[in-house]
Amino acid sequence: MSLDSTPTRPHERLAAELAEDLTGVNTLIRARMASEHAPRIPEVTAHLVEAGGKRLRPMLTLAAARLMGYEGEYHLNLAAAVEFIHTATLLHDDVVDESKQRRGRPTANLLWDNTSSVLVGDYLFARSFQLMVETGSMRVLDILANAAATIAEGEVLQLTASRNLSVTAQTYETIARGKTAALFSAATRAGGVIAGATAEEEEALFVYGDALGLAFQIADDLLDYEGDEGIGKNRGDDFREGKMTLPVIRAVAASDAAERDFWRRTIGRGRVEEGDLEEALRLFAAHGTLQAAREDALRWSATAKEALAVLPDGPLRQMLADLADYVVARLN
Amino acid sequence: MSLDSTPTRPHERLAAELAEDLTGVNTLIRARMASEHAPRIPEVTAHLVEAGGKRLRPMLTLAAARLMGYEGEYHLNLAAAVEFIHTATLLHDDVVDESKQRRGRPTANLLWDNTSSVLVGDYLFARSFQLMVETGSMRVLDILANAAATIAEGEVLQLTASRNLSVTAQTYETIARGKTAALFSAATRAGGVIAGATAEEEEALFVYGDALGLAFQIADDLLDYEGDEGIGKNRGDDFREGKMTLPVIRAVAASDAAERDFWRRTIGRGRVEEGDLEEALRLFAAHGTLQAAREDALRWSATAKEALAVLPDGPLRQMLADLADYVVARLN
Repeated sequence: MSLDSTPTRPHERLAAELAEDLTGVNTLIRARMASEHAPRIPEVTAHLVEAGGKRLRPMLTLAAARLMGYEGEYHLNLAAAVEFIHTATLLHDDVVDESKQRRGRPTANLLWDNTSSVLVGDYLFARSFQLMVETGSMRVLDILANAAATIAEGEVLQLTASRNLSVTAQTYETIARGKTAALFSAATRAGGVIAGATAEEEEALFVYGDALGLAFQIADDLLDYEGDEGIGKNRGDDFREGKMTLPVIRAVAASDAAERDFWRRTIGRGRVEEGDLEEALRLFAAHGTLQAAREDALRWSATAKEALAVLPDGPLRQMLADLADYVVARLN
Repeated sequence: MSLDSTPTRPHERLAAELAEDLTGVNTLIRARMASEHAPRIPEVTAHLVEAGGKRLRPMLTLAAARLMGYEGEYHLNLAAAVEFIHTATLLHDDVVDESKQRRGRPTANLLWDNTSSVLVGDYLFARSFQLMVETGSMRVLDILANAAATIAEGEVLQLTASRNLSVTAQTYETIARGKTAALFSAATRAGGVIAGATAEEEEALFVYGDALGLAFQIADDLLDYEGDEGIGKNRGDDFREGKMTLPVIRAVAASDAAERDFWRRTIGRGRVEEGDLEEALRLFAAHGTLQAAREDALRWSATAKEALAVLPDGPLRQMLADLADYVVARLN
């Protein structure tokens, strides 16, 4: 055994296994983000689409289709459609968050403007539906239109949840589905549908994607308090922004009167002073809320792996299982 | 004859003729803009959807379907989908324009914020595709996904065309299709498709909607220079914002060196001084460009009416013809 505890990265093994399909998806993405009339569009999009994202969501679609024995070409359309929806939501999030950086580069809305981010996002969203129409599968359109609605709904809900101490773990889950799990589960399910999966297999692919997405999002939120500085966001950003993630939600639920005043002042009213982040971490430790959230993430990861049991065994299924381990392996 | 020269308004006669359908569309709109998880959504949407818009686009879909003898219920879905797409683009335009007023009320982005405008627009867009999926017609999805792409493309093109003196009448037409005609023509065509129109009838409905939309947009742009103050925008707004509409495009094309300097300073660089609007109007008159744009609008209106010839005769067809007259009747 190596002393290096970094696991072999399953998304890289997936990318190798699906290399030919991914080349096809990238070709399709480049072709469809072009615009005869508006050259600004590929300028804005290329910035994001070429920025070295992991193509995790399209890989989920490709892997699901291949796992179910698909031999056609429409899984490429679906994978490109999924990536376009993802990119559109990133562009719109940049406007929403007034973000300054994404993936270590300046965001599109600083390089261009809010306007371009909004309109190019809309363009990609429309393009994604065109790609789906070409597959001729109404079921696929149904799945991805529903996912798109859930995503927007979750993001609106997140707005109203910010700095709101009455947010529950259930609301958090709805938001996390909107932010992450809805597109993951639509990606895997649509891949299965195009491959003619049975209802049971389709359901398993849905549960896998949903649980993977929730594990991923909970882990991401935990790393905001636990991670080092190398992952592109600053430790405690969520605290300063008043985000109601699981460690806070549970600490608020367990708080005494003095602790509640602390949360009201910091998360509720955004009056964060020197030493408050350390106090928040102390309260998390006192109530075991980071540990509880870690267990939630591990439980979702386990749910994802269990769902795979009814699907055909083989290297692709193993990589999907490893991926479910990997998204929580960051949590020590 | 009354001395009042206002024509009997054909969109009001259409609304009366289609009253029962419109009630159904309004019910559907209210049901589908609701969100179990995010109550902010109907708050933002109701503001726009209930704000007394004329429902022109959904009426085009309803009229086209009824004209072709449709007796089902799916035209209500399509009409609601068309209105949702329209509302989504209005919400996103408000962010883009940083508009302060729409239809005489404060825009959503002032009452709430850019964030809500972007996300609720996305939600409505997703909802519109869900409504289309329910019809089971892939052709309809194709038509409206294409329209959505054309709309976003046109809006991006408009950004790059602003204050750009090299913009041609052809580019203007592409932009006008994106802003207006693409959704008009998709609305009429989709109504025909759901009713089982022949290819010839479908084409006629498309041409009618496209030409109606172009006549409407050219007229709207003319009224920015010719209209009184009662229509909700201020005379000369487009001039101050550097918009390349037909009167300017043609005046620039016909300009001598001194006139070109004037356009460079005002439209090109936005340095508009006292008396410049009057000078622009003088140059329009000298080169006959308002008159030329008026003739363009009348030509598109005639094209719209001619397209109706192959469609079943009757009161609905007459109202559609009258509507094509009405959108240019404002120009005198």
